[in-house]
Amino acid sequence: MELPSRLIEAAVDQMASLPGVGRRTALRLVLNLLNRSDEQVDAFAESFQSMKRGIHACPQCHNLTEAEVCSICADSARNESLICVVEDIRDLLALESTRQYHGKYHVLGGVISPMDGIGPNDLNIETLVRRIASDGKTNKETPTEVIFALPATMEGETTAFYLFRKLANSEVKVTVIARGLAIGEDLQHADEATLVQSLRQRLPYTT
Amino acid sequence: MELPSRLIEAAVDQMASLPGVGRRTALRLVLNLLNRSDEQVDAFAESFQSMKRGIHACPQCHNLTEAEVCSICADSARNESLICVVEDIRDLLALESTRQYHGKYHVLGGVISPMDGIGPNDLNIETLVRRIASDGKTNKETPTEVIFALPATMEGETTAFYLFRKLANSEVKVTVIARGLAIGEDLQHADEATLVQSLRQRLPYTT
Repeated sequence: MELPSRLIEAAVDQMASLPGVGRRTALRLVLNLLNRSDEQVDAFAESFQSMKRGIHACPQCHNLTEAEVCSICADSARNESLICVVEDIRDLLALESTRQYHGKYHVLGGVISPMDGIGPNDLNIETLVRRIASDGKTNKETPTEVIFALPATMEGETTAFYLFRKLANSEVKVTVIARGLAIGEDLQHADEATLVQSLRQRLPYTT
Repeated sequence: MELPSRLIEAAVDQMASLPGVGRRTALRLVLNLLNRSDEQVDAFAESFQSMKRGIHACPQCHNLTEAEVCSICADSARNESLICVVEDIRDLLALESTRQYHGKYHVLGGVISPMDGIGPNDLNIETLVRRIASDGKTNKETPTEVIFALPATMEGETTAFYLFRKLANSEVKVTVIARGLAIGEDLQHADEATLVQSLRQRLPYTT
């Protein structure tokens, strides 16, 4: 599709650079922006620039923050002995929205995926190992449990296995979140691998 | 979902203001932007501002343009006696990409839709009427045919009927693009209304 102006072309190119946005959708979004006022388009554009300038990764857990350390790391009410390892910040937000976890996090920034050229060195693994192996040198409590809350995919499992071996020399307890039948799901609609897991990891029935 | 910073919150709000983009998708897109360099985010943001500043509607046909009139109106090689009426610029681009139409256009900027509060006065109808009724006062050729290339929906039909009545006093010929079985489509998958149209508007068979 030939666009009537290189300015629109450039805007469509930028919009289509977002993941999952094709050129047709990009054009629809860009035309929507064209219908707004100059001030509204400025507010749209500047919100991303302000965010980019103002946000950085927390040096401890790699969560995003405007402050020196993120609000979760800074929260002394949270249990320092628990570290939940997640792939990215969206997974952290999903767990936070349950309001049931009161430990700390560690955001890997991805999972090991040779197909996508992502190896262990591309992930925030060294900082995790250092957090575990703090050897009582700091005043902070040393973590006693690391929870793997990684995706139940080949890449997630590979990453978990790699981390498990990395942490093998420490005394930390390593756990993994349960896999099984999703709440509200039918057995007949669950996939086979999920059913196998839910059988293998069966628990004593409690009321 | 509670976001870890008001800067991210603001960026997600802006992204989610685009049509068809929910907050979950907006967060994914915004995190993608966060992984880019400052320069890349600037280029992203500024492309929309430059477009907004540099683009306006063509005073004749309401196509978008950087110049005084759009490239189609300015093209003297195109047939001035034909005006194709479309809902919006995306429809114009779709027709242009066929490379089979060499007349001019008129972009209504929408269709009449009482449900959405869009009436005739919200559309570029007066300028169309004026283009038709030029009364030989200009040097330009007066259009002899207006082609309705509007969506085959209730709103599109309503708009076509309204325009038809508006143009009734002029001597212009009014036509409408054919509706029928789409190329490559099965009869059994076509909807009933389309089949009825394709039967009613049957043509002498030619090879």
